[in-house]
Amino acid sequence: MAKAHRPERGPLIIIGGHEDKEGDRAILREVAQHLKGGRLVVATVASHAPEGYFDSYVQAFGALGITDLVELYIQERSETHDEAKLRLFDGAAGVFFSGGDQLRISSQLGDTPVERRVREIHESGGVIAGTSAGASAMSDTMLVKGSSQETHRIGDLHLAAGLGFVRDVIIDQHFAERGRIGRLLGAVAQNPRELGIGIDEDTAIILRESRFEVLGSGGVYVVDGGGVSHSNIAEAEAERALSIHDVRLHVLCAGDRFDLSGRRPALAENREAKAQAADR
Amino acid sequence: MAKAHRPERGPLIIIGGHEDKEGDRAILREVAQHLKGGRLVVATVASHAPEGYFDSYVQAFGALGITDLVELYIQERSETHDEAKLRLFDGAAGVFFSGGDQLRISSQLGDTPVERRVREIHESGGVIAGTSAGASAMSDTMLVKGSSQETHRIGDLHLAAGLGFVRDVIIDQHFAERGRIGRLLGAVAQNPRELGIGIDEDTAIILRESRFEVLGSGGVYVVDGGGVSHSNIAEAEAERALSIHDVRLHVLCAGDRFDLSGRRPALAENREAKAQAADR
Repeated sequence: MAKAHRPERGPLIIIGGHEDKEGDRAILREVAQHLKGGRLVVATVASHAPEGYFDSYVQAFGALGITDLVELYIQERSETHDEAKLRLFDGAAGVFFSGGDQLRISSQLGDTPVERRVREIHESGGVIAGTSAGASAMSDTMLVKGSSQETHRIGDLHLAAGLGFVRDVIIDQHFAERGRIGRLLGAVAQNPRELGIGIDEDTAIILRESRFEVLGSGGVYVVDGGGVSHSNIAEAEAERALSIHDVRLHVLCAGDRFDLSGRRPALAENREAKAQAADR
Repeated sequence: MAKAHRPERGPLIIIGGHEDKEGDRAILREVAQHLKGGRLVVATVASHAPEGYFDSYVQAFGALGITDLVELYIQERSETHDEAKLRLFDGAAGVFFSGGDQLRISSQLGDTPVERRVREIHESGGVIAGTSAGASAMSDTMLVKGSSQETHRIGDLHLAAGLGFVRDVIIDQHFAERGRIGRLLGAVAQNPRELGIGIDEDTAIILRESRFEVLGSGGVYVVDGGGVSHSNIAEAEAERALSIHDVRLHVLCAGDRFDLSGRRPALAENREAKAQAADR
């Protein structure tokens, strides 16, 4: 029996916020390339006040030759059944989640016809991108709240179920800019099965199946708690500072690659070739 | 032949800045305990405008029963030969370096009679404490400048030789509060022989020979680059974001201990005992 044709799942482009919209636009250019002329649905649902978000993407993508953009905004969860809203996805080659509050994305879209349309697009090869709150919502467990710029207090962390486009990772954004290593370490301490991925502003990972590559001007921090020998996260004194021993940390920059299943970083192919050439 | 009596070297108390001066004062209390009624020299030399520093410590230590405090300020390096300045150390049981600019400490005191007096006090069992800039100056290599709250750019780091009371470490302070993990990773990438130690505000390490214990309300980050498999620090594109793979990171809180020579963390003794009791 012939195997049924199944299209390859599309890439996830997960952006740490404040991606360049006026200069070289390396990250938006990457999104544009995957659209191949198809429609982009800009989902501004994360925002409590979405005015302006869509227009800024119309301008930024317009200069990259992408003109078929539509805005999806959901004020109330009941609207996710509206035929008019669902028709926005017709012929769409990608969906872009803008910033705001990740809990709005999960609470308004989780288990709705809109979420199923996004998933269909992804399964049939479309690109799914998200920036800031839209990045956090990509994983199955997402960070909702937790203090920045201080060492994590073991009681101060709020997680929620995300959209689950990528499993067994927790994504944080605006990472170095907002001093968020502490809260990501806290999230990983809770269950080291989850790999922590902190993405800087104007920086993205392009994820296909279980491998990603870094793009943009900042860094991507991978916090691997698999080898942790001790943590005090379960001690339940909420104000106590986190203690966690033997974390493996990788900082990746543009061109670096990472294999989620093996939990290993790798260099870009051309850099490996260069290094070999230099060694001769 | 009988071995000459040699007193044990005193402890180093290395503080991440903004230690509590009005409440419980756990860190200053620790300094006070080591003085055993002896004189404390408060070296305000790190500051360009030292007014007020000394008075705040007179008040903070006064409430802990420490009343014999003297201020050492050096405006110009030539003053380090003044007999009056050197006599401040007579009978001193400890020296406390306050905050400011670590480059003022090293440039004004390095290789002077004042520095030798401080070293003599340390060698004969006196306590040497330093907060903020005074903490950075303790190590042989010190971080002078480097941007906070962003992923490290490989060209943006300024190191200098410190006082060298502790070797093969680089100390950074105000650590989580100023988002400094990036610059400490950059410093460690330059030479992973140096162990990076980032100390939060109101947090200290108490170091005796090669072991320290953590005290205070925040965290202490130990960045161990010994197993690093790749970094781009020598690529010399100043604006490029740092890439560094396979860093070992420990976050320590009050009571945690660390062995610098073995590069291994350990739990507080009472916590180990508690854990064993709970396991039965």
